[in-house]
Amino acid sequence: MIISMKNSAPQAEVQKLIDSIEKKGLSVTLIRGANYNVFGVVGDTTILDEKLIAANPYVDDVTRIAAPYKKANRIFHPQDSVIDVRGVKVGAGQKICVIGGPCSVEGEESLMTIAAAVKEAGATMLRGGAYKPRTSPYAFQGLATEGIKILCEAREKFGLPIVTELMSVEKLDEFVENVDLIQVGARNMQNFDLLKALGRVKTPVLLKRGLSNTIEEWLMAAEYIMAGGNENVILCERGIRTFEKYTRNTVDLSVIPIVKSKSHLPIIIDPSHATGDWRLVESMSLAAIAAGADGLIIEVHNCPEAAWSDGAQSLKPDNFAALIQKGRKIAQVVGREM
Amino acid sequence: MIISMKNSAPQAEVQKLIDSIEKKGLSVTLIRGANYNVFGVVGDTTILDEKLIAANPYVDDVTRIAAPYKKANRIFHPQDSVIDVRGVKVGAGQKICVIGGPCSVEGEESLMTIAAAVKEAGATMLRGGAYKPRTSPYAFQGLATEGIKILCEAREKFGLPIVTELMSVEKLDEFVENVDLIQVGARNMQNFDLLKALGRVKTPVLLKRGLSNTIEEWLMAAEYIMAGGNENVILCERGIRTFEKYTRNTVDLSVIPIVKSKSHLPIIIDPSHATGDWRLVESMSLAAIAAGADGLIIEVHNCPEAAWSDGAQSLKPDNFAALIQKGRKIAQVVGREM
Amino acid sequence: MIISMKNSAPQAEVQKLIDSIEKKGLSVTLIRGANYNVFGVVGDTTILDEKLIAANPYVDDVTRIAAPYKKANRIFHPQDSVIDVRGVKVGAGQKICVIGGPCSVEGEESLMTIAAAVKEAGATMLRGGAYKPRTSPYAFQGLATEGIKILCEAREKFGLPIVTELMSVEKLDEFVENVDLIQVGARNMQNFDLLKALGRVKTPVLLKRGLSNTIEEWLMAAEYIMAGGNENVILCERGIRTFEKYTRNTVDLSVIPIVKSKSHLPIIIDPSHATGDWRLVESMSLAAIAAGADGLIIEVHNCPEAAWSDGAQSLKPDNFAALIQKGRKIAQVVGREM
Amino acid sequence: MIISMKNSAPQAEVQKLIDSIEKKGLSVTLIRGANYNVFGVVGDTTILDEKLIAANPYVDDVTRIAAPYKKANRIFHPQDSVIDVRGVKVGAGQKICVIGGPCSVEGEESLMTIAAAVKEAGATMLRGGAYKPRTSPYAFQGLATEGIKILCEAREKFGLPIVTELMSVEKLDEFVENVDLIQVGARNMQNFDLLKALGRVKTPVLLKRGLSNTIEEWLMAAEYIMAGGNENVILCERGIRTFEKYTRNTVDLSVIPIVKSKSHLPIIIDPSHATGDWRLVESMSLAAIAAGADGLIIEVHNCPEAAWSDGAQSLKPDNFAALIQKGRKIAQVVGREM
Repeated sequence: MIISMKNSAPQAEVQKLIDSIEKKGLSVTLIRGANYNVFGVVGDTTILDEKLIAANPYVDDVTRIAAPYKKANRIFHPQDSVIDVRGVKVGAGQKICVIGGPCSVEGEESLMTIAAAVKEAGATMLRGGAYKPRTSPYAFQGLATEGIKILCEAREKFGLPIVTELMSVEKLDEFVENVDLIQVGARNMQNFDLLKALGRVKTPVLLKRGLSNTIEEWLMAAEYIMAGGNENVILCERGIRTFEKYTRNTVDLSVIPIVKSKSHLPIIIDPSHATGDWRLVESMSLAAIAAGADGLIIEVHNCPEAAWSDGAQSLKPDNFAALIQKGRKIAQVVGREM
Repeated sequence: MIISMKNSAPQAEVQKLIDSIEKKGLSVTLIRGANYNVFGVVGDTTILDEKLIAANPYVDDVTRIAAPYKKANRIFHPQDSVIDVRGVKVGAGQKICVIGGPCSVEGEESLMTIAAAVKEAGATMLRGGAYKPRTSPYAFQGLATEGIKILCEAREKFGLPIVTELMSVEKLDEFVENVDLIQVGARNMQNFDLLKALGRVKTPVLLKRGLSNTIEEWLMAAEYIMAGGNENVILCERGIRTFEKYTRNTVDLSVIPIVKSKSHLPIIIDPSHATGDWRLVESMSLAAIAAGADGLIIEVHNCPEAAWSDGAQSLKPDNFAALIQKGRKIAQVVGREM
Repeated sequence: MIISMKNSAPQAEVQKLIDSIEKKGLSVTLIRGANYNVFGVVGDTTILDEKLIAANPYVDDVTRIAAPYKKANRIFHPQDSVIDVRGVKVGAGQKICVIGGPCSVEGEESLMTIAAAVKEAGATMLRGGAYKPRTSPYAFQGLATEGIKILCEAREKFGLPIVTELMSVEKLDEFVENVDLIQVGARNMQNFDLLKALGRVKTPVLLKRGLSNTIEEWLMAAEYIMAGGNENVILCERGIRTFEKYTRNTVDLSVIPIVKSKSHLPIIIDPSHATGDWRLVESMSLAAIAAGADGLIIEVHNCPEAAWSDGAQSLKPDNFAALIQKGRKIAQVVGREM
Repeated sequence: MIISMKNSAPQAEVQKLIDSIEKKGLSVTLIRGANYNVFGVVGDTTILDEKLIAANPYVDDVTRIAAPYKKANRIFHPQDSVIDVRGVKVGAGQKICVIGGPCSVEGEESLMTIAAAVKEAGATMLRGGAYKPRTSPYAFQGLATEGIKILCEAREKFGLPIVTELMSVEKLDEFVENVDLIQVGARNMQNFDLLKALGRVKTPVLLKRGLSNTIEEWLMAAEYIMAGGNENVILCERGIRTFEKYTRNTVDLSVIPIVKSKSHLPIIIDPSHATGDWRLVESMSLAAIAAGADGLIIEVHNCPEAAWSDGAQSLKPDNFAALIQKGRKIAQVVGREM
């Protein structure tokens, strides 16, 4: 950590700051510049709070050199992690996973039809929302427990692990008992109570990046779960908020190589939410595979215009199947299977 | 609501869409253009889900004319709302409220010192975090119930209503029993389960704008609380995320006149979090008052460099008192008291 | 175009607005809603200025249905355009073009070495800056005319068309005489005088997207050049500005399918500037090809750490050659050659 | 400047980098950390190019401590600058300047009417566009030289210095001869050739912030002009691009105290372009004055709905006069005249 102070800072104040840091077992080196004095702090700087140091009126700026995450950090864990979701292995050189299914579970018949189709097309897991985060209180909020039950039946029937979103700590038991991969939605990425609760269980977590969260904040959210004891975290990029208006969000595929260099956790891409437009899903999926993604999560609906939510971004089963065919060829070029 | 479809859409598909809308009791008017057909939908369009309509492969675009919120909408509620926080009235032409206090409650002695100082300076409510949303799992997470107790003691002693942040539904009872104004933090603005729970109580809610949420999403979050039955919502701008690096966030003061034109709810400004830098707090506070804000929430600490969180943005009590002195004069110019 | 007005607008004002639009030969249809009156305007709406209409104090909102660009619009020009750059054809099903070379031309020997390497690796054009837009007035500003001369020699020797950036109208003659593909940099995307001047020549233009420009503004900038008579425009995405800090910019690959649906112009990707980090260039290049890009422009330097500008994002020749090898295999999967 | 390298960097490479920096007359201090080596560089670091250093494959990150601008930097020029625009003094404790007038000059009669009105209301300078940067090539592009002539006549008649935008170097002579304050528009903020040309004259320059430019880039653009010899620069904030859709741009008023702490140059605010909506102009103007702005530039039109450009953001003369009346009272509170 680097702390810069204006030269005009009184010597006593400078010494007080140095003492407070050294007392915590870190060492401090001073570099005198023309207008600034710069202090280099060496040791376990994750125990320092940079905002606190910046509060010192004589401090001009504080810069971290080492990342503030440990368990998610590749420096301390050089091997790629592989997360096991009821037998489907995600990450490292494993087969690229393909999670398909509707935005919301809308009923038994409907889900079985879609599940059969995504299985047939080559999906390795089944998604479907039972509890839905909706911008409007007047929009469909999901089938709740009924939706979870239907997902379990589909798993039984088609042998696909199930992925669905948890919105509150109160439902955690229901999820641990029934769900194979618990999704944390973008809007809850910094719902720290939820993250802490997930740290106390062992079920794998699919952690979506918040709409305006930096990669560092995202890895810190993973760190919350891992620090609690649950290291089974899969990261999922789903688009960030920018000024562009032709897409719902801007898909940021550069996170794939960046996450792989900073962390050992697997990363998958959600092109459906990232673009909000089914016409962009295939090209962004192929791009994600070419860039090294460990998986895809894609919305599929047999009748998108009748879907109860997010139909505009859902693929029909035949387009989903075609995407997987092309995706497999791209995967081969980058040395992966899918 | 306006729906545009390419002229190439088959007549049968066009009719199907019109029928489905008319069946809901709305009326549809067609305007034929050279390359597009445009449908105007009239009636209670809040019951339509634009994403679903956009899912129709023949639909090119969907635009709302009327806002999707009702209870928060000034059109249906032309009078300014006044929210009563244990006797302190916020909104309309009421006195501009000033909420002061530390980022975190750090202990009884410390809080009493600060509470005495903010009261003396002219604050009308006391803030202080007991449950703290922290980016890092290794940072101080708040004194929890102990912090709430200390806040209650301070209220007893100084007669200031207390404001503190609720992070999970599980603690709602504790808050309803003890807290006068329940804060929903920026990171939880779209934690819909939390919003729904707050809709079921009567305690006033201070709803912070999310770091990358539009004003419409913010009013929809208020709508969640109000739709549940709790119309005591105060909006709070605390800066949005942009590309600028010299400030932590960018304070968006144009929300003041915009919120006042779109909604009847009071709006206050948090210049401490919006800027992340105590040196910017006074000028942004005066600007907020000049722009018509109904209140301010400001971090104050008697010893910022020793604060347990966010010291960099905390004012010392004397600066806080000076700010209030100047603020009162600005308030007078815009026809308000403070 | 859709114009919405509050119901409270006086009838005389409403009629005045309708008259002024009809006088221009467009037709207006009224849809009455509960709180708004909505007018649909049909005809050549590109001649209307929506900001002017919005200036009417009774107008609440104005929405365009048809895009404001014509010559760049696929609706009026359904066939993909192919741009011929001194014999290298770009766009449609043509071979994916690969433009390689240093950020700046640094001298004859250095450029010849790099040109030989990029040619050997498989590049089809040579890039190199002679006039450099630099954030700091104290940074190297380019070799100017001397740089152009060296590029011409390299073209002579290696048979590669040359691409370089034009920064001011004054140098246009020099560029028309010497350069095969004139680049408009991101910072000049809305330098309208420069765009107009380029509309008066026939040399192909490589139009980079501005750091914070929407796709619509980008296509309108192309429209400026095309409206002047020069339809030889190639679009180039080079990253947009967002809140993320781990990359210099955020590469937005979804522009590839979007531009292809809205326009007939070719689109290429610049992963070097988009990421600012050579370690991300290969994966983003492969992703771009998978997503359907018509070409790549990549910075290559034989000794990046000694480059006079932007070394951090330059590939060494052997990495560039490896990228092309992999890229060719991806191209094959999506039905293209490279 | 702080350079961090992974510990794994070979000693020879580390030494090579140190040598190359020391050769330039700067000194380097090493701090060894657990995983990183950090080098502090002391001396005139404006001569170092951080991108070049970051190009070194062993370098992990480079951070500047001292700002890269000199002439615009308050550290080297502690006194506030006052810019004299044909007798109207801007900056420091001078009277807050008020620049009013139409977006475009539309004709002699129209401009004289508006000029009389803004003069009467209390404006101290007259604005009006003669050369207009328009997103669409089909929109009105300004009266050009004819517009400049009309502005000069208005100056003659009303005694107000004139402000208008320069879009290309070719017209510089015309502007130097006729214009009192030459405006550089947001889209040209990094048109470096234009900035260099303005550095060679003495006419004061009004430098607008680019829509997505950081404060540092803005000060670097000022530095371009100042480095050329023209230190008469006034900065103008006109809104930045964000995700919010209810306003055209987001006005960032925190730039006022920030610019005042980093630089000695005057700063004024353009609430008309920043919001794009005349209904927001008064509140944002009062906020700007409260925050310490040195001036305002506001669009005024006697008949906004008939304006040839940007009518939606123009105030009518009586609203402009009312704004100035209130503004004067706010100015008094913050110790200024207006």
